[in-house]
Amino acid sequence: MNGRVQRLRSELERLDVASFLVSNPVNVRYLTGFESSNAFVLVKHEEVVLMTDGRYAEAARGVEGIDVAVVERDFLPGVAGRLAELADAPVAFESDHLTVARHADLLSTGVELVPAAAVLLTLRAVKEPGELGEIRRAARIVDDVLGRLVAESVTGKSEADVAWWIAQAIHEEGADDVSFEPIVASGPNAARPHHHPGKRRIGAGETVVVDLGAKVNGYCSDCTRTFATGALPEDLRGAYAVCQAAQAAALAEVRTGADLRGLDAIARMEIEASGNDVLHGLGHGVGLEVHELPVLRQTAAGALAAGNVVTVEPGVYLAGRGGVRIEDLVIVTAEGQEVLSGFTKDLTSLN
Amino acid sequence: MNGRVQRLRSELERLDVASFLVSNPVNVRYLTGFESSNAFVLVKHEEVVLMTDGRYAEAARGVEGIDVAVVERDFLPGVAGRLAELADAPVAFESDHLTVARHADLLSTGVELVPAAAVLLTLRAVKEPGELGEIRRAARIVDDVLGRLVAESVTGKSEADVAWWIAQAIHEEGADDVSFEPIVASGPNAARPHHHPGKRRIGAGETVVVDLGAKVNGYCSDCTRTFATGALPEDLRGAYAVCQAAQAAALAEVRTGADLRGLDAIARMEIEASGNDVLHGLGHGVGLEVHELPVLRQTAAGALAAGNVVTVEPGVYLAGRGGVRIEDLVIVTAEGQEVLSGFTKDLTSLN
Repeated sequence: MNGRVQRLRSELERLDVASFLVSNPVNVRYLTGFESSNAFVLVKHEEVVLMTDGRYAEAARGVEGIDVAVVERDFLPGVAGRLAELADAPVAFESDHLTVARHADLLSTGVELVPAAAVLLTLRAVKEPGELGEIRRAARIVDDVLGRLVAESVTGKSEADVAWWIAQAIHEEGADDVSFEPIVASGPNAARPHHHPGKRRIGAGETVVVDLGAKVNGYCSDCTRTFATGALPEDLRGAYAVCQAAQAAALAEVRTGADLRGLDAIARMEIEASGNDVLHGLGHGVGLEVHELPVLRQTAAGALAAGNVVTVEPGVYLAGRGGVRIEDLVIVTAEGQEVLSGFTKDLTSLN
Repeated sequence: MNGRVQRLRSELERLDVASFLVSNPVNVRYLTGFESSNAFVLVKHEEVVLMTDGRYAEAARGVEGIDVAVVERDFLPGVAGRLAELADAPVAFESDHLTVARHADLLSTGVELVPAAAVLLTLRAVKEPGELGEIRRAARIVDDVLGRLVAESVTGKSEADVAWWIAQAIHEEGADDVSFEPIVASGPNAARPHHHPGKRRIGAGETVVVDLGAKVNGYCSDCTRTFATGALPEDLRGAYAVCQAAQAAALAEVRTGADLRGLDAIARMEIEASGNDVLHGLGHGVGLEVHELPVLRQTAAGALAAGNVVTVEPGVYLAGRGGVRIEDLVIVTAEGQEVLSGFTKDLTSLN
């Protein structure tokens, strides 16, 4: 924990500020271990102050190495009112989290504020060994759930029922929670990358996209497999082959130093060469949130670093017909890569 | 749906703007029925434009009565790039949702922007009959789950196990989802209003705060009951009596026109008169989100209106010992009130 505060402190110098106000609850948790929906951390060179409201005050006082200031639940009379007194100016704030209205509240105190985006997100993108251990556990749970799913019969069941079966299995396998509501998209719905599972009953001869993740001690996993319910029509068989090849080609290039946009381009070119459109980027970082840095897409800049954990998940979508997405979770290591998704990527049938 | 867009259009005149850019996904859903993590609605006098990225494009085209513009997933090259071309200026934006960084992106287009906070939240605070129907269904599910809970044995089980049992029961009773992760707080943990259920095993002679909610067609319910595991020590019995009296006194005054701060004060005075501290406000609105307007607390201004749906949930917390919270969900009607929480508020024992 302390190492994280130290890393943020070295950012203070780069940003030329004396304090950093952290407002994103996920970043508050990352820095202090403290979880709540309403807490702010002020990191100064010599001190760390956690500001939260009365509902969380008792829990906050249990956090080691930080001072606690109890504030009103409303932002303005609470945090803003204390900021001038607690902070050394100028104060960096999370401009990619703080709303315009709250920013106006803080400005009204007269404290000099400096916008800083993606500072904590960038620190979080490189995982510590302990974090990798949690993500490995969360990924193993998904493998176990997929292994159980193939023994289930899904044809005739609704997407929502199968999604709930998956959520239960994730808990039964020891996760604290799902990392997001499982996606089960069948038939024409499989052509929608972020379909919300509904009442549609899964039929025969369809693709079923299953996108799921577990949460262990706050850390997420993320994995997608696409199943067939019996023999598929030729266009969907073709889509599967294209997606599988694109995924393998991009995955093979995941290593420290690999260009983010270049990885996206590898899968993109495979898919476009087959005459299909690309509806989304190749992947994203995973950690305390299921979507983190780095992002692997056309508009990205930069390269993979050792300690990044990313998804590789191209999709091929045939509007009105069906779709295929295959997603692995991968740790970028100094030596190369460690793929955390162990379930087969060969086309598998569900009953 | 159209009535909602019309109501927002009349706000355009009040704000003296020509367009309103809606960025909060819950408000996007409220206006258009469209659900996604990345969509923006531009409401103009003659037109409604939904902007979303490729992952949601096919689903968006199924929404009636709106135009769809597909944008890049990144906000700046996408929405901002189209805004100058699509919007009639000046454009109101949700200053209580849009981040400082995204606001800067929009400003860079040269479009004149006007901050507008709580506009949609204020519209959402008064529910339509159809919305009340969903909330009633969500509340009934909670009653059924509490009825089943009293037949279960909880002593010796972990808080997390009981919380997961509740989440499963909420699904089994027909909810689409929980409206928040159930809170199960036992023994000293019951003194923490927003305790996260953990490994602690529930003992005998303790208070167990159970705070739960269901989601039906997007609409939430919210209810808290505090149980005893066998005979309670005198201080906790006393806390229960104080909380029950405070809750009944405040609830009795819920009606159209009741002062928000005044309702909070009724419970607050009862609790403080008993020598206890008040750690949180009396309650909050409930709807598409579990925390909405109006807020019933010391710093609130205004009065209840017919169609509001609010919680009444005072708590009495004894640090290190235990706690009691009792929460009802209530519809404010033209005639008075309709209490949606049917489970008994008399002290009930769990095995």
